[in-house]
Amino acid sequence: MIYDLIIIGSGSAGLTAAIYAARKKMNTLILTKKIGDRPSSFYEIENFPGFLKIRGTELNEKMIEQVARYGVPIKEDMAVSGIEKKDGNFLVKTETGENFETKTVIIASGRKPKKLEAPGAKEFETKGVSFCTVCDAPIFAGKNVAVIGGGNTALLSALDLLPYANQIYLLQHGEKFIGDEAIIEKLKAAGKVHFFANAETIEIKGKQFVENLVYEDTKTKERKELKVGGIFISIGQFPNTGFAKGLVNLNKQGEIIIDSLTTQSSTPGIFAAGDSANIPYKQCVIAAGEGAKSALSAHEYLLKIKKI
Amino acid sequence: MIYDLIIIGSGSAGLTAAIYAARKKMNTLILTKKIGDRPSSFYEIENFPGFLKIRGTELNEKMIEQVARYGVPIKEDMAVSGIEKKDGNFLVKTETGENFETKTVIIASGRKPKKLEAPGAKEFETKGVSFCTVCDAPIFAGKNVAVIGGGNTALLSALDLLPYANQIYLLQHGEKFIGDEAIIEKLKAAGKVHFFANAETIEIKGKQFVENLVYEDTKTKERKELKVGGIFISIGQFPNTGFAKGLVNLNKQGEIIIDSLTTQSSTPGIFAAGDSANIPYKQCVIAAGEGAKSALSAHEYLLKIKKI
Repeated sequence: MIYDLIIIGSGSAGLTAAIYAARKKMNTLILTKKIGDRPSSFYEIENFPGFLKIRGTELNEKMIEQVARYGVPIKEDMAVSGIEKKDGNFLVKTETGENFETKTVIIASGRKPKKLEAPGAKEFETKGVSFCTVCDAPIFAGKNVAVIGGGNTALLSALDLLPYANQIYLLQHGEKFIGDEAIIEKLKAAGKVHFFANAETIEIKGKQFVENLVYEDTKTKERKELKVGGIFISIGQFPNTGFAKGLVNLNKQGEIIIDSLTTQSSTPGIFAAGDSANIPYKQCVIAAGEGAKSALSAHEYLLKIKKI
Repeated sequence: MIYDLIIIGSGSAGLTAAIYAARKKMNTLILTKKIGDRPSSFYEIENFPGFLKIRGTELNEKMIEQVARYGVPIKEDMAVSGIEKKDGNFLVKTETGENFETKTVIIASGRKPKKLEAPGAKEFETKGVSFCTVCDAPIFAGKNVAVIGGGNTALLSALDLLPYANQIYLLQHGEKFIGDEAIIEKLKAAGKVHFFANAETIEIKGKQFVENLVYEDTKTKERKELKVGGIFISIGQFPNTGFAKGLVNLNKQGEIIIDSLTTQSSTPGIFAAGDSANIPYKQCVIAAGEGAKSALSAHEYLLKIKKI
């Protein structure tokens, strides 16, 4: 079988693309590593229009349900390993060794979190070091917790920890925290969130479990230790685009360079939407809008080359 | 008072922009002609991610509520008549004679429907000729109704009429209907929707109220008459951008030409989002995404020129 469209990824970009593709009656398949497995989707979201407040996971479930209503199949446990050209179509290869042929591809594979380089960071993963506050915040009830990072994701992580943690230490390598003022104010109002700028994490220590975080004040070169029972790392993300290397042009950050009007990549027939593309802002509603664009563009492309 | 941002319009682009601006603590004002007054928002929407099915008006109300929670003021009955530069800021003028000064502007003023030129079309407005099926469909219960137009809006109008009208005639000037196949199939399955391509409306006739629609088959030149109790016109839209002429570059269709990455217009500090901009697809979720982008871009612009 040759699909009209294969969508790689099941975040808001991929799922919105699927809704639009289904309405255009495109024969569509979604390939995804894991449904609901998006770091961005674990937080409580207050900026998706239509919902005063909704957990990212719940919003994702609603979209999955919507896609299911349209009958678009989702194949899980399908990490894409590469995409090849084949007779004017594309062959999408997965790590399980399966190949799927398709006329068009939308890459909506998102990003994955950057790991911390400090000693102990890897060793204590799942032993107090985490990347996902929603999954793990309740485990740290009553404990002191550090969040490493200075952007919105770090601030949202701290927000997620508020109902559970005792004291929260926000450590930012740079000079200032760059996330939403609204969140910063909310955190300050809570009275138990402590902001440390110019703070570089030197080491994570403990016996069985995380016990201490050593950081250096990069201005005074003074080293200090925080007694913590948990550490959340929110220092950035990598786009999941390795499999597309060589086929489409990527920028320095590894994001797929798209025509921002159509979302088409440097290879006609391959589109990219959401966090894996070089759009300036990584937000759920923006990814959704880009997903809709990409499906409509893919449909227009198929009409143009008379393949639909 | 000088605002950080004035948003013109209260559709999904403008309201999503307001949510994002409020979270960035920008001092924001929304100016709008009428809340909820968007032709696109009267239909039942099934392609907005997160909602299996929702009336556009209800989705709009949810966004209005969300914006209210953030405390962003909305001034209604404020048709913008012009925007002028003033000391590095902008002066937004309204038809009521009021002026509002602001550092940035987001134009999210949407589009308005095209009127039909045929004799009788204007005469019978509000007497059986309508542009909004949600407002008026129940009035036509049990009657035969014509929908003029061949795009998605026309198809959605027919869909809205299904529970009310007796027979539905879809008249398209061009050779084919260009909307979603999914909707066309749904209409065909209903068994009471009749598709006429190559059909040019010649005249709308009646006494007090619409009674007949005369159309010509543009291939055979034959004229035919349909007995109808109502006519819905869905032949296109004009962007509401007249007030921006001279200040920002518009394309031939009157849409504001934007940098599609940042949504900035040809004038720094003025952004455009949604249906009033030259983005290729006019969809609610795309407009929402563009609204988010425009607010984040406006904030970045203010940071760059050190005005925030």
